[in-house]
Parts: sequence; C-alpha cells; structure tokens
Amino acid sequence: MIVRRPGQIKAAITAVGGYVPDTRLTNHDLEKMVDTTDEWIKSRTGIEARRILKDPKKATSYLAIKACENLIEKTQLDPKTIDMVILATITPDLQVSSTAPYVASQIGATNAFAFDLQAACSGFLYALSVAAGKIAAGHYKKVLVIGADKMSSIVDYKDRTTCIIFGDGGGVALMEPSDNEYGWEDEYFRSDGKGSDYLNMKAGGSLHPTSTSTLEKGWHYLYQDGKNVFKYAVSAMADVGTEIMKRNQLTNKDLKFLVPHQANQRIIEATAKRMGLEEEKVLMNISDYGNTTAATLPLLLHDFEADLKKGDKLVLAAFGGGFTWGAALITWAYN
Amino acid sequence: MIVRRPGQIKAAITAVGGYVPDTRLTNHDLEKMVDTTDEWIKSRTGIEARRILKDPKKATSYLAIKACENLIEKTQLDPKTIDMVILATITPDLQVSSTAPYVASQIGATNAFAFDLQAACSGFLYALSVAAGKIAAGHYKKVLVIGADKMSSIVDYKDRTTCIIFGDGGGVALMEPSDNEYGWEDEYFRSDGKGSDYLNMKAGGSLHPTSTSTLEKGWHYLYQDGKNVFKYAVSAMADVGTEIMKRNQLTNKDLKFLVPHQANQRIIEATAKRMGLEEEKVLMNISDYGNTTAATLPLLLHDFEADLKKGDKLVLAAFGGGFTWGAALITWAYN
Repeated sequence: MIVRRPGQIKAAITAVGGYVPDTRLTNHDLEKMVDTTDEWIKSRTGIEARRILKDPKKATSYLAIKACENLIEKTQLDPKTIDMVILATITPDLQVSSTAPYVASQIGATNAFAFDLQAACSGFLYALSVAAGKIAAGHYKKVLVIGADKMSSIVDYKDRTTCIIFGDGGGVALMEPSDNEYGWEDEYFRSDGKGSDYLNMKAGGSLHPTSTSTLEKGWHYLYQDGKNVFKYAVSAMADVGTEIMKRNQLTNKDLKFLVPHQANQRIIEATAKRMGLEEEKVLMNISDYGNTTAATLPLLLHDFEADLKKGDKLVLAAFGGGFTWGAALITWAYN
Repeated sequence: MIVRRPGQIKAAITAVGGYVPDTRLTNHDLEKMVDTTDEWIKSRTGIEARRILKDPKKATSYLAIKACENLIEKTQLDPKTIDMVILATITPDLQVSSTAPYVASQIGATNAFAFDLQAACSGFLYALSVAAGKIAAGHYKKVLVIGADKMSSIVDYKDRTTCIIFGDGGGVALMEPSDNEYGWEDEYFRSDGKGSDYLNMKAGGSLHPTSTSTLEKGWHYLYQDGKNVFKYAVSAMADVGTEIMKRNQLTNKDLKFLVPHQANQRIIEATAKRMGLEEEKVLMNISDYGNTTAATLPLLLHDFEADLKKGDKLVLAAFGGGFTWGAALITWAYN
C-alpha cells in the first residue's frame, strides 16, 4: 500500500483527451461477415458497434496523436514542457522501433523522452503507475500517458470470437504534481504468466518468428480463449477492486465510480456485483467502442470527464493479456 | 535534473545478474554465410563473436529467466518479495501477450506485477528510470529490471549489415531503496521519432500488419541504416553524457567508468573521445557478445561487477531505435 511521507508530492491526472475514428462497424455489418447475430453479440458482450480506423496508412500512432491533440487543444498545454511520453499499446506502428518517440515528435514534445509499454488491457493503468512514480519521486513534472490500439490491424475478420469484440481508439491523460490534496492514492497490481496461453498473438516474437508457416496458421492474428479469459477476469478484477477499497477503508458509498476496463459488459457487471456496487456507479462506453485494449480507461475518463468532480473517489480496474491486472484508487483532482 | 527533497528515498542497484548462451557465432563462421571478413568486422565494429540461443523452442524469456536465476542464486533473494518486474525487450516471446508476466511467474515472483517496456537499445536504461521512480516515490521496495533480447530471432542471416552486429543475451538489476548515500543520482533522456526510418522492423505492427507481401519483402527482419545510426548515435550519446556530467559538476577524473550501450566499438570510442574520457574508463564486452540490444548495459554491470566499488561514479549511456537515448549518473551502492 502506498504510504506518503510528510511533504511528499502526490501525482494527479490534470487533463484527459480521447479519439475514436468515425467509421462504425456495427453488429449488423458483422452479421454479413461472420456467423453471428446482433442479438447474440449484444446479449453476450454489450457491444453494438466498434470504431475502425479504415485507412491502412494510418496506424496506432494516428489514434495516439489525435487523442494528444485533443488534450493539448483543450488545455493549451505547451508540448515543449512535456518531460516524458508513455504509450501503452499492443499494436505499435512497427514492431521495432517503438511508437512513442514518433508520437512525441509529432505533437511537438521535443524535450521529452518516450517509450512503449506493453501490458495489453492493463497497459494504460500500469503506465499511469509509472508516471505516478516519476512524479511523486520529483523526477518529472509533466508526463503524458497514452493508451492507444488499432486492434483492427491484428484482428481476423473471419474469426467471430475476436472480431465482434475489438475496436480502435486512443486516449491520454496528463499527470502532474497535484496542487491540492487529490491524485494517485494507491495501487494494487498483479500478473500471472499462465495467461499467455489464453490470450495471445503467437507469431512475430522470438518464440515463433514470422514465417510462411506462421502466416498459414494465422498466428499473426489475435487469439482469445474467451471462456477462460472471462473466468479469470471477473475473479481477478473483483479481487483487486475489493482489496484496494478494503485497505483504504472505503465502503461502496464512498466510491463515486468504478472505471473498469471495457472487455465485455458481462465481465464488468459481474465484477461490480462481486464488489457490491450499484449499476450507476459503473462507467461504461463499450456499446459503441467495443474493447479498445489500452485505450478503454482513458476513453472512459475522456467521455465522462464532465461527471467527474474534484475529490471524487474512483477505482480504476483492468484485466488483460499476460495475464496482467490491477486496481488503482484515485481522487479526481480537478473540475 | 533530479533534486532530492530532505529525507527522500534514493533508489539503488543492489545486485546484478547476467546470462549469455554458450554457442558462439564467430566472424569466421559469418565469412561462410555472407560476403564479409573477420578483419572487416573487427575493424569496423570491434566484434569477434556473438552468442546465439540456438534452440528454436527457447525465446527471450529463457535469457531473462537465466539472468534472474543468476541474480537470485548469488543474492539468495526470495522471489516472493519482488514487487515489480520490468522486461526491456524488442523481441518478446509473443507479440501479444507481454513476456514479463511469464518471466515473473517462472522465477517465482508470484507477488509481483510485470510488464514489457520497448525502447530498443535504451530499454534497460529507461526501465531502470521507471524502477528508480517507483522506489524513490516509496511505492515499492524490490524491482527487478531485466534487459533481454534474442536478436537472432529477427536477424536475417543473409543481410551482412545486421547479422554481423547482433547477438543474444540477458541481464538484470535489482533496485531497492538505498541503505547508504549511493544510488540513482540523475538522468537525462531524449527521443526523436525520425529514428524509425533508420532502424526498424517494418512488419507485424499496425502500420504494416504481417501478410504474404511483408513476408516476401523481408519486412519481418530488422533493418538498419548503419551510417545514419552511427552518426546520430555518436553525437547523441556524447551530448547527454557530457550534459549529465556538467550539470552534476563532475569532471572526467571524478568518473570511475562510462557504461555505454555496446552497439559498435567505434561509436563507443568516438563517444568517449568527445566526452574526453580515457580508454580505461570505458567498459566494453562487445567483442564477444556483439550488440545484445536491451541486454548490453546489465551484461556490462554483471561482467564488471567485481571492479565496481561502493561510491564509484558511473555514467550509463545508451542510444537506440526510435530514436531513444539518454544518460544516467549513478553512484555504485555496494561492494
């Protein structure tokens, strides 16, 4: 548990931004592509549409840059003052080199350093934790934390188990030293390597370098064993969510919102139920976006920014490939 | 520049470990594979051999695990006490999900969370910075920072511009709160997105998803424009190395060692010359390992651990794909 020393800096999210492409791939569109129905998808996942970045010349960096531009425009942030840019993604533009330096250069963050962080659907949460560390340590003052994924670039649109789930999007949060008592309060993160069997993209790494054989097997597409991921996700997200509230002596009535990774509406509802939370305390935008992987949490903060008030207690929770999962308690630091 | 508040925790490297495979791929071996000579390679790069993880069933995680096991064996560290595991790599086992959770599980770090960090040859340095932040902030007490790459999995052994350079290896450092006055003193990092044109692996990301066409073009292999990378590397590494010494009021005689990324002996020598450092202050092991990407810095610390004494001032410097680069000043914290 994070214990702050007297006088220590607290990191806080001070601005957010987001971007989703205009093109909507609806359940009705998918009915024409794979053996599925709108009713089946909605009842099993809560998803009605997902946004797709159609232009093949535009990659994850485009989503990240648009989200950052949204934040910069809203806040009039001078990008030259940014110290550090972290991009959480599992769909970098290139496999080498990392995408964050390109994004940083494109948005004018010419005094920053930048890197990519890979923790799948927990990526944005982990990247926030990294930023919170560098700020609370006094190392930096302005860190951009981006979550962006062009999932359509690794989804097989003949595989009905994945193509109905994932969408493209990008979101970003600015972290700075808090100028009030609010900000990053606590975090409780876990991982378990057994997850790589259930959610993966087998080819292109050092275990199965890309070859004619991996291409023929379709190993360059995302694979998900939905049943097992569902099972682990519910129990893991509920565990960390409950634990972080318990160790911070919070009851459900103290919490303003649960901000959960948007993998599947049923996972979210089951998690909230196990945490004893009412429906209206759970933020959701999955119906129109699907699962945008690292982008779900910043997109939620972006979409619901107007509902967040200074001092509101939020639990951010995520579960994803790896497995990686965790929960963070934050107090919202601005109106 | 990092300024510490009174009473603030300082992060320190408290142990290191390393591993390279036994199989040596010598210049003479390469003479039989591509149009090159031992003399040409040695004079241009300083490399005589590189280590190769031959077994196709063993990927980057194997190198990382062996390095961690070496550290754990030397120090009798209880892996259950590890809070966080960061793996810097550009050759994860799978493209999704990340490799760090698997490594953490395999070494018994069952209470840790884990993620991958991608910043190419600067990856380990950036990961140390992340760990230093989390520790100095008081968030965690034991962070394993691993740099590991099975470069042979993405190198085209018909491309003489890259196959003579890269090798496989893994290294690791444990970071903890310092129990003396020594540790992580300062860091100065930069990135520039223009680097992605000069050093990349084009296919497998969201810009060029793997396809028959990318396979035919060989875009699943590493590409390097050696001349341009050389030019940027020397000026960038020398700039940050000089700047970090200047702003910490250090002259060359105060420095025990420069610990530079091992990309090319001529880059290292040119960097050291521009920094005004004598040859004996520059750590090198490139001749037997080649460029192991994220593993070069921890392998240097591992190989030269016996020469490092408490209080020694070291500058770690790296330059890599992205571009990403930087320098960190540390005072060695143990004998």
